[in-house]
Order: sequence, then structure tokens, then C-alpha cells
Amino acid sequence: MRLIRSLSAITSAVKVFRKSKNKIGFVPTMGAFHEGHISLIRRAKKENNKVVVSVFVNPIQFGPNEDYRKYPRDISRDKELAEKAGCDILFYPSAGSMYPKGFNTHVEPEGLSALMCGKLRPGHFKGVATICAKLFNIVTPDTAYFGQKDYQQALIIKNMVKDLNMDIRIKILPIVREISGLALSSRNRYLTPAEREDARLLYRVLKKARSIIRQGEQDSSKLRSIIDNILKKPGIKIEYISIVDPDTLEEKKMIDSSFLVALAVKIGRTRLIDNMMIKIKN
Amino acid sequence: MRLIRSLSAITSAVKVFRKSKNKIGFVPTMGAFHEGHISLIRRAKKENNKVVVSVFVNPIQFGPNEDYRKYPRDISRDKELAEKAGCDILFYPSAGSMYPKGFNTHVEPEGLSALMCGKLRPGHFKGVATICAKLFNIVTPDTAYFGQKDYQQALIIKNMVKDLNMDIRIKILPIVREISGLALSSRNRYLTPAEREDARLLYRVLKKARSIIRQGEQDSSKLRSIIDNILKKPGIKIEYISIVDPDTLEEKKMIDSSFLVALAVKIGRTRLIDNMMIKIKN
Repeated sequence: MRLIRSLSAITSAVKVFRKSKNKIGFVPTMGAFHEGHISLIRRAKKENNKVVVSVFVNPIQFGPNEDYRKYPRDISRDKELAEKAGCDILFYPSAGSMYPKGFNTHVEPEGLSALMCGKLRPGHFKGVATICAKLFNIVTPDTAYFGQKDYQQALIIKNMVKDLNMDIRIKILPIVREISGLALSSRNRYLTPAEREDARLLYRVLKKARSIIRQGEQDSSKLRSIIDNILKKPGIKIEYISIVDPDTLEEKKMIDSSFLVALAVKIGRTRLIDNMMIKIKN
Repeated sequence: MRLIRSLSAITSAVKVFRKSKNKIGFVPTMGAFHEGHISLIRRAKKENNKVVVSVFVNPIQFGPNEDYRKYPRDISRDKELAEKAGCDILFYPSAGSMYPKGFNTHVEPEGLSALMCGKLRPGHFKGVATICAKLFNIVTPDTAYFGQKDYQQALIIKNMVKDLNMDIRIKILPIVREISGLALSSRNRYLTPAEREDARLLYRVLKKARSIIRQGEQDSSKLRSIIDNILKKPGIKIEYISIVDPDTLEEKKMIDSSFLVALAVKIGRTRLIDNMMIKIKN
């Protein structure tokens, strides 16, 4: 595996891949790998000849009061894990090379980006779409892999690729969880043991939602208030409970087809999200 | 030459070009060809194995009170002229295929897009950048060709390509003029004979500016007032007279290096622009 930092080096490395007709799989990440990332890299390796993984903590997707500075970084560990999982090139650019002086063009995903996480993190998805467009143009992948934990992000990128006619397939892979049910996240390491206990509630409440639905509940406001009651605990601040159409992210009043339950909470100072796609058998 | 309307057909045609290692030159246009367009197509043919020309009157770059509906369209004439000039594929998509239902991602060129024409046409360059990003992703050119008449547009696209790491070279070719000096524009056909006479003033005033500078004038406000006085005529509405740095489009107070004089006026109901790059020999 090669670790590449410069734009010119990644560009020529990718051109060499292309010349030999390789299929390129791409996994864009912010590093601090956990099994979720590893599952994406492994799948990319299975489906492509060459795998490029990027590690870049993207400054423009963090708000002014968010955790850009303290976001976990551990490139030497990431390097080892990526190589084991089958990565061919680990692309690890500097912020200065991605956003040089005079940088002034953004990709603006409208509509979806104003909902759910976008409501609470203005500019976040603009930052995500912009960095993904840049990385896609640099890496020229056949397929890019995203985790379902960041469902809204993956959906926005999927739409961006379609809207801007990029010749890339986007695959969304299942959330990887601890045995306790907690969705893996690089931010879990911020949690104290007591907070981690609270964090497990997220998955428990999603499973509860699923079983209530399967018992026939169709009123999403009733479902929301059940979820709300379970999560309402000291130490947990609910940011949103969304029961939405999985394509448009529009809130559903009646639960009458497949839908997504998505949660965002703050536990202590740590922001966590989780979600579950629930299919209704008619 | 092939005339292609559908996205799937252009995509596969371009892939065939790529497979045989062709260099692809691309000329994005709104049709209604004049010698300016033809000069771009000819140059593209000289520098590439294959030339793709697009004809698309892009709805999202027109303001609500602008001339989207009446913008001249003449695809059968364009087809003939493009073929003669060396075009291999004329791509002529429908608005519905470029902006299908649910389309929601734009490319937003900040900074430059708020100046000059951008001040008077809010959203215009966002529309231009978005359609160019889409067309570049569809056509995958090695080089795309723009005319200097729309200097600000070409500069914004050049910056977009750099900012979003697109692997495309942008070339800006000289303005083509009538013998009278009037810069060719598809909108010239809106002009009455009397208005056309007035329109010739634009080039005359640019040449005047150049000669004043060459005589040693360094104060841009004096230059601007000379231009203003010449253009101030009944029937001409000055939108802007910009004396700017050619990279940043920032207004220059002192004329001490190369710079751009750019004009926008309305003659009757027709909006015309023109510009001249003036190099100072030190």
C-alpha cells in the first residue's frame, strides 16, 4: 500500500490504474478507523481491482463551535488497518492542498441539505458535497462506498452524483454496531463509560420503533412520542427524531410504506446519530 | 457528424472516443452560431482528435426578466456550421434531461460571481457553473474552449475546474469582431440598424481606453469618466464600466500592470458586453 499526500502524486497513480483498465473502488473517510470503515474498504476490495481510501478531516464541513480541532486523528493506526483491509492507496492530503488560497467554488446540495442534520449544522452538507466532488474528481472511482450511519450524507452524495452527471456508482453499506448495539463512530471515543451506557439507548429505541410498527402502529406522531419518552433522560439532549421518506427525507404522517427512523442526540458534549430503515410488509 | 440528444447516447459515444485514446475538445454553447463559436470549434479540431459541441440554452442561467424564451435558436443551421467547422458530435439535450424532476445540486462559484455581470444578474454564474460542471462530467473533455467576450464566465469556469480538481484544461480564445469592430454575439440579431450603429461604440471606446493608457494615464477613475462620457448617449444604458485585475476582477485604482476593461450596456432592450485586455509595457 502507498501513502500519498500530494495531489500530483495521487493523480498520476490513479492514471496508471486507469491505463491498466482497473476498476477503482473509493472510500472517502475522516480517518480514526473503526470496523465500519474497515467493512467499506473490504467491500471495495471485493468489488474492484484497486482501492483508494482517503483520510481527510474536512475543515469546511465543521461549524465554528464543532469539534474540528479535537476530531480524533491517528494516521499511523489508520495506515495499518487500511493496508490489512486491502487498500492500495491511502490518500492523506493536507488542508492547504485541498483548499489553497483563493479557493472559492462550492457544491451546494439544496433541498435535502436543509433537513435533519442540516437544520442543526448549517453549511455542513455543502462542505461534505464539495469535498466529495473534489475527491471524486481526483480519484475517478467507479464506485464510492459510504456507511448507512450517515444516511443523509450518503443520500445527498448519491443525488449530487446524479444531478452533476458524475459517472460514479454510490453504494451505501449497513451500519456496523458493537455487540451492545451502539453504532460505531469515531466520536464514540469521546464518551465516558456512563455516557456510553446512555448511548446504547439509541439502538434500543430504534428496535423498539420497529417492533411497534410491526405490531401495526401507523401514526408517526405516536411513534415519535414513544421514542421521545424513552430518550428523555438527564444527560441526553434530543436534536431530532425523524420519521421520513428514505428518498426525500420528508416527514411522514402516516407510516404506510418503507421509511427511515433517524435520531440525533447529544450525550454530554458528544453528538451521536443513528438510524434504521424499516420496511413494511403489506 | 452525429447529432445526439440523449444522455445515454452521448455517454456511450464519449466512452468509445476514450477507449481509442482520443483527445477530446469540447465547445459548450447556447447555439445560434456566429464566427466566434466557429473559431472555437476550429481550434478544438486543430488541437484534438475528436470535437464535441453542445447546444443548450440553459434555463437556470437566465433571470426571470431575461430573454430565455426569445433567445435565438436555430439547430439546423447550427448543425451545418458545426459540421463544416470539424465537429464530431453535436450534443443537443433537452432541458428536461438536464434538469429532471428532483434536480437539486448546484455549483456555486463564490467571490467572482458577485462582481460585474454577477451584480446585475444574480444567480447567473451559479447557473453557468452548474451546467458546465454537468457537461464536463458528461463529455469528459481534455480541453474546453471559451470565448473571451464572456471573460468573466471563462474565468469563473477556469477557477471552478481548479477548485473542484477537474482534470480539464480551459482555453480562452480571442473575441471575434465584425469589420466595424462590434463583437460577435448571438444577441446582436436583436438590434435595429440604428442600435447596431450605437453598439459599435463599445469597441471604439475600448480602443480609445487603450490609447489613453498607452499615452501614460494611470488613474482609473479618469479613464472611467472618459469612457462614461463617450457612452453616455440616449438609447444607451450603461450597466458597468469595470477596470479590473484580470485574475481577481477587483477594481484597480492605479493602472500599473496588465488589466481588463469590461463594459456592459443596454442598447434599447438588448444587453451587450465587450472587453479588452490591456497590457502595459514597463
